Amino acid sequence: MKRRSFLTGALAGAVAGCSRDTAQKSSAPAINLNKTYQWKIVTTWPKNFPGLGTSVVNLISLIDRLSAGRLKVKEYAAGELVPALGVFDAVSEGVAEMGHAGAYYWKGKNEAFQFFTSIPFGMNPHGMNAWLYEGDGLKLWREVCEPFGLVPFPAGNTGMQMGGWYNREINSADDFKGLKVRTPGLGGDVLHRLGAAPVTLPGGELVTAMQTGVIDAVEWIGPYADLAFGLHTVGKYYYYPGWQEPGPTLECTVNAKAYESLPADLREVIAAATQVINQQMYCEFNAKNYQALQVLRNKHKVDMRPFSEATLDRLREESQAVNADIAKSSELAGRIYKSYKKFQTDLLQWHRFTEQAYYAMQK
Amino acid sequence: MKRRSFLTGALAGAVAGCSRDTAQKSSAPAINLNKTYQWKIVTTWPKNFPGLGTSVVNLISLIDRLSAGRLKVKEYAAGELVPALGVFDAVSEGVAEMGHAGAYYWKGKNEAFQFFTSIPFGMNPHGMNAWLYEGDGLKLWREVCEPFGLVPFPAGNTGMQMGGWYNREINSADDFKGLKVRTPGLGGDVLHRLGAAPVTLPGGELVTAMQTGVIDAVEWIGPYADLAFGLHTVGKYYYYPGWQEPGPTLECTVNAKAYESLPADLREVIAAATQVINQQMYCEFNAKNYQALQVLRNKHKVDMRPFSEATLDRLREESQAVNADIAKSSELAGRIYKSYKKFQTDLLQWHRFTEQAYYAMQK
Repeated sequence: MKRRSFLTGALAGAVAGCSRDTAQKSSAPAINLNKTYQWKIVTTWPKNFPGLGTSVVNLISLIDRLSAGRLKVKEYAAGELVPALGVFDAVSEGVAEMGHAGAYYWKGKNEAFQFFTSIPFGMNPHGMNAWLYEGDGLKLWREVCEPFGLVPFPAGNTGMQMGGWYNREINSADDFKGLKVRTPGLGGDVLHRLGAAPVTLPGGELVTAMQTGVIDAVEWIGPYADLAFGLHTVGKYYYYPGWQEPGPTLECTVNAKAYESLPADLREVIAAATQVINQQMYCEFNAKNYQALQVLRNKHKVDMRPFSEATLDRLREESQAVNADIAKSSELAGRIYKSYKKFQTDLLQWHRFTEQAYYAMQK
Repeated sequence: MKRRSFLTGALAGAVAGCSRDTAQKSSAPAINLNKTYQWKIVTTWPKNFPGLGTSVVNLISLIDRLSAGRLKVKEYAAGELVPALGVFDAVSEGVAEMGHAGAYYWKGKNEAFQFFTSIPFGMNPHGMNAWLYEGDGLKLWREVCEPFGLVPFPAGNTGMQMGGWYNREINSADDFKGLKVRTPGLGGDVLHRLGAAPVTLPGGELVTAMQTGVIDAVEWIGPYADLAFGLHTVGKYYYYPGWQEPGPTLECTVNAKAYESLPADLREVIAAATQVINQQMYCEFNAKNYQALQVLRNKHKVDMRPFSEATLDRLREESQAVNADIAKSSELAGRIYKSYKKFQTDLLQWHRFTEQAYYAMQK
C-alpha cells in the first residue's frame, strides 16, 4: 500500500470538479504550457456504440479542446488493443493511460466495485451523483482503486434501465422459476435465488438466442439500445421498472502514475471533462430513450408490462440479501455499503417531497 | 440584429460541452498560451449565499484551475458593483464580462426568459438538462440572448423547491383567497388568479413580515435555505410539492464581445466549467436539503403537509394558462413554449417507466 503516499498529491486534484484545494497549484508557474501528451484510452464498448461509445468520442474531443491540444487521447474500442474485459488490467499496468467501462465488471478484483455502477434496488442517477460528488462515494471509490494504481472518475450514466423482454408473463415471483434469462451481474444473482437460470451472453447473440429458445427473456439496457438490436422482434412483453440497474454510473479510470505525471491544469481537465460527460450521457439517454420508446409503442405496438407490487417486494427482498452479501466480502466493502445505504435512505426522504411528488403532480 | 453574424464563430463553441465542431480550432497554433485575462463576474446573490453564492465561488475556482490561471475572474456579489437585479445590464453593456443569476429575473427584457429557469408545473432538473443540452433548449436560449449581446450557459440547479410555509391550512384552492403570500414570479401570478395577494419581499424581511402578519405565507427555496433563515419559527405548515418551481436552472451569462475575444480553449473552459457547476449545485442541494429536512422534522417537529390532488388540479389549470400567456408574448416565445412543452410531454412518457417507477418501488 505504498502507493498511498505517492498518490496523495495527484488525488488532491481528483476530487469533484469543484474542489478548491488545488486552486493555488493551477496558477503556479511550474506548468509548461507547451508540453504535449499522447495518451491511449481503452474501452469495453464497440466503437461508436450508441450512448456509450459515442460518449467516449465526446470525452476525447472535450479533453482535446479544453487542453488546447496539449492532451491528445486516442481511442481503442473493445478488442482493438485489449479485449473488452481487459480494460482494468490494461490501465492498471499502464498499457493504456485511460479506460472507459463500468466498475461492476471488476467484481473479480474487488466485490466492492459493484457499488460504484449500480446495485439492484440501489440509487438512481441523482442519488449516485450526489453520493459520489457531495457524499463519501468518490473518496471510497478511490480507496478501492488505490491498490491497483488507478484513479477513478464518474463518466456517464445511462439512467434507469428497463426490466427486460420476456416471452412469458411474469405475474408473480414464482414465474421466474426455470426461466433462462439473460441478465448479468447482481440482477442475475437475484433471479437465481428465485429459481431462474441466469445466462451470460454478449449483445450480438441476443436475438438469435431468443429466436432459438436458448433463452426465454433478455434484459439489455432500454429503448434506445434495445431498439437498435431489434429486441422487440423477439420479445413479447417489455417489463418495467429496471429494478436491477436503477441508474448505472460509467467510469473513466486513469493510470495513477500517468495521472501524477500531468501538470495540475490537465488533471483538472480530466476531472471536469469526465464530469461533463457524466451529465451529458444521461441527457443523451433521456432524449434518445423517449424517441425510441415512441417508435416501440406507436410503430411496433410493444406490450409494456409492469412487474406487480408483490413481485417487486420479492425482488427487493432478494436484492437486499445479495447486496448485503457484497458488504460482507471485506471491511472496506462493509464501510461502502453502510455509506451507500445511509445516503440512499436519507435522500429518499427528501425526494418523497420533491422528485416523487413531481411525477405524481404531472398529468 | 447585426450581432447575429458577428456571434456565429464564438457561439459554435458555446453549445454543450460535448460539441465537436470546435475540435479542430482548439488545437490550432493560433492560441497564445501565455496571454492572461482578468474578468469580473457580477451576481444576484449575497456573497457565499448557501448553494448559490457558494457555486459562484466554485465556478471561479474551476475556471482558474482549468485555464492554468490564464482566465482570472473576480467576484462582485449583489450590490458590490451593481445591484442584484442590475446583473443583466451590467453584462450586456460590458461593465462586467460575466454574470450569475436566474434568467427569469429578466422577464422585463423578454418574457421568454422565464422558460430557461423554471415555470409552474414545468420540467424538473433532468428534463431541463436534457432539453437544454440535447434538445433545442440552449439554442433557443441563445437566440433570446443574442440581441442583448449575451451568451448564456446553464450553471446550476436547486432541484425542486418546496411549496412554502403557510399559517393557514390549505385544504382546497379556495383557501388561497385573500391570502397574502410571498411568492415571486409566475407562481405569484397563478396564486393571484386564485384570489391570493402575492407580495414581493427580499429574503431578509421574510421572518419579520410573517411575525407581524404582513404576510400569511412565504415560499422561499427548500429546507437547506429555509432553515438558515429560520422560516420554521414563523410558519406553521410546510407545504409540498413546489409546483411553482419544479427544477430551476441558474444561468451564467457572458458578454458576447468578451467571449469572442477569448481563444477557443478558454471558451471551452467556460462551457465545461458551467456544465460542471450545473451538475454540482444540484448534488449540493440534494445532499444539504436532506440534512436540513432531518433537522426540521426531528428537532423542530415541522408539520409537513401535501397540497391535495384537487388543489394541485386547480393550480395546474391556472399554471397552464399563465404559461400559455408567455407563449403569446412573441413569435420566439411561442416557438420556445412549443419546444419546451413537447420535450416535457415526451420525456414524461419515458420517466413514467423509469424515474417515477423508481420512487414507487422503494420502500
